[in-house]
Amino acid sequence: MSFYDQIGAEGEIVVSSRARLARNFTEYPFPGHMTEREEQLVLDLAKGALDHYTYLPVNTMSPMNASALVERHLVSRELLSGTGPRGVLLSEDESISVMVGEEDHVRIQALCAGFAPETALKQALEVDRILEQAAPYAFDRKLGYLTKCPTNLGTGLRAGVMVHLPMLTEQGAIRDLMASLNKLGFIIRGLYGEGTAAQGDLYQISNQVTLGIAEEEIVSRLEQVVGSILTKEEELRRQYQKMYPMRLMDRCQRAAGLLATARILTQPEAMKLCSHVRLGLSCGCLKGIPMAEMNRLLFEMQPGCLVSQAGEERTYLNLDQMRADMARQIAQKAVLPLIES
Amino acid sequence: MSFYDQIGAEGEIVVSSRARLARNFTEYPFPGHMTEREEQLVLDLAKGALDHYTYLPVNTMSPMNASALVERHLVSRELLSGTGPRGVLLSEDESISVMVGEEDHVRIQALCAGFAPETALKQALEVDRILEQAAPYAFDRKLGYLTKCPTNLGTGLRAGVMVHLPMLTEQGAIRDLMASLNKLGFIIRGLYGEGTAAQGDLYQISNQVTLGIAEEEIVSRLEQVVGSILTKEEELRRQYQKMYPMRLMDRCQRAAGLLATARILTQPEAMKLCSHVRLGLSCGCLKGIPMAEMNRLLFEMQPGCLVSQAGEERTYLNLDQMRADMARQIAQKAVLPLIES
Repeated sequence: MSFYDQIGAEGEIVVSSRARLARNFTEYPFPGHMTEREEQLVLDLAKGALDHYTYLPVNTMSPMNASALVERHLVSRELLSGTGPRGVLLSEDESISVMVGEEDHVRIQALCAGFAPETALKQALEVDRILEQAAPYAFDRKLGYLTKCPTNLGTGLRAGVMVHLPMLTEQGAIRDLMASLNKLGFIIRGLYGEGTAAQGDLYQISNQVTLGIAEEEIVSRLEQVVGSILTKEEELRRQYQKMYPMRLMDRCQRAAGLLATARILTQPEAMKLCSHVRLGLSCGCLKGIPMAEMNRLLFEMQPGCLVSQAGEERTYLNLDQMRADMARQIAQKAVLPLIES
Repeated sequence: MSFYDQIGAEGEIVVSSRARLARNFTEYPFPGHMTEREEQLVLDLAKGALDHYTYLPVNTMSPMNASALVERHLVSRELLSGTGPRGVLLSEDESISVMVGEEDHVRIQALCAGFAPETALKQALEVDRILEQAAPYAFDRKLGYLTKCPTNLGTGLRAGVMVHLPMLTEQGAIRDLMASLNKLGFIIRGLYGEGTAAQGDLYQISNQVTLGIAEEEIVSRLEQVVGSILTKEEELRRQYQKMYPMRLMDRCQRAAGLLATARILTQPEAMKLCSHVRLGLSCGCLKGIPMAEMNRLLFEMQPGCLVSQAGEERTYLNLDQMRADMARQIAQKAVLPLIES
């Protein structure tokens, strides 16, 4: 069961929380200065320490299956574009993923449903301890954990949440939010990282500062920052629903109607419609679809996921048709109550 | 039961057929030269001859109820804008309407479902005979029936059909059609006459020449002209469905999905969606809605019909909401099979 099959705290706005730790082993040269053999040794070390995890060698997978891992936020694009021995170790529920051979020796990531960065940090630190027992980390008493890029020095922690902000987006408030978050040492980006547009009104908010601050403090500041954004988004939703109840219902129910009947769906359109449906579910304009199914749909209708789900024999199919087929099954659960009531 | 509750010949493309006869009584001065008393006498004459018809005095009706008559093609806008005694006599099924006090003393109109201009002419001529028995018409052996405007001289007949041409419209073929029909003495116009845009891809095709040609010949030429247009439209539909089956299904089913879920519908959008649904029903991409209900919807979602149907106490309601409420009930019959299958 994946993290997006659950709905956590503030699940109407917060899809998921994430903690990522960058670590390097002191016994091996830093990435960029390693022989292929040393890279293999690091990989074997991590595999040995986490032998109950599933190992996926990204360099021998089909490109679409590898893309599906990126789309589900289990690995980074950077891991796929690298050379040499590298891959990802996944816990059974896919809530923990450990990339080996990305920018640092290991990158430990924990994903949780809803607004729970503290839990995500706790889970990442547990895996961190297991790996540390296998081999000591490169650690400096003053600088903390040593990382390839100085922006990760110190805690090596990036704590983040994925949030759905349709109303702040519609009101054009994201640009201001970007500026004010930046001043606080946080960054807000689209669904697939820096430079990606905010498809489906989905954003990632995470810390930029990793040095000179404790892990718990990073998480606590993130919670504060995100908490105030949630309050704003909720207030805008309430205001809009009070002032334009029929327009809101129209928008959300039309989106469900289109998702339930379309035979061809491009990704940008599907993401936009999913955003409206998600908003409709959260404000009571739509019923019948569990929010978790919408979250799952958001990820699984991406190209790599579609193709890897369909299996080899179906990959000749049109992606836009496959996406529509998937969306129809889920959205009809919302449309049926509309029609029968 | 109205004509649009039935589906006639070629009902997938031809909504209705119409025959209209312009007549003046020889005992009274021509329109424009009458006293109000004479106008009243002509009105009484017609009411007396057709005493089993319902008489609606358009000048004392509410403007919205009068508009509804125009939208349902039972009277002309010109009748509403006139002064003095005038009104319309309607047969019980509303297939016959006799306007008194429009451009001519009387205008007899017969409407039939589907492609049946001959039947429409026959029905109009029956009423024509009844009125002629009440008072002789102004008739010239050489010129035929005398009318106020010379363009109606002769037979006084305008025979026409209302057709749904989504594919010819999409292919941009209507302009060429206009030119070639003109050469043959026919005219193609939008749903509400000259100068109105072709809402819902609906057009009226009718004869322009009334002089020097027998009624039967007018109807027979109309049948030929329209027959060749039907063939073209049918061929384009077949070709499109063969080449782009999924696109066609997508378009028609999306339209049904939107009509079944929207809470706010402007008239132009609703007409466009109805056109797609009508196309879907005719080519098998949609099931569940009788074509007659779509025809009824096309007329009844016009502003005047909406308001007059809703009655006094509901007229404060938003027209776009009333239209959506009406469309939803009908379109859900098509969406439900889509969802359950």
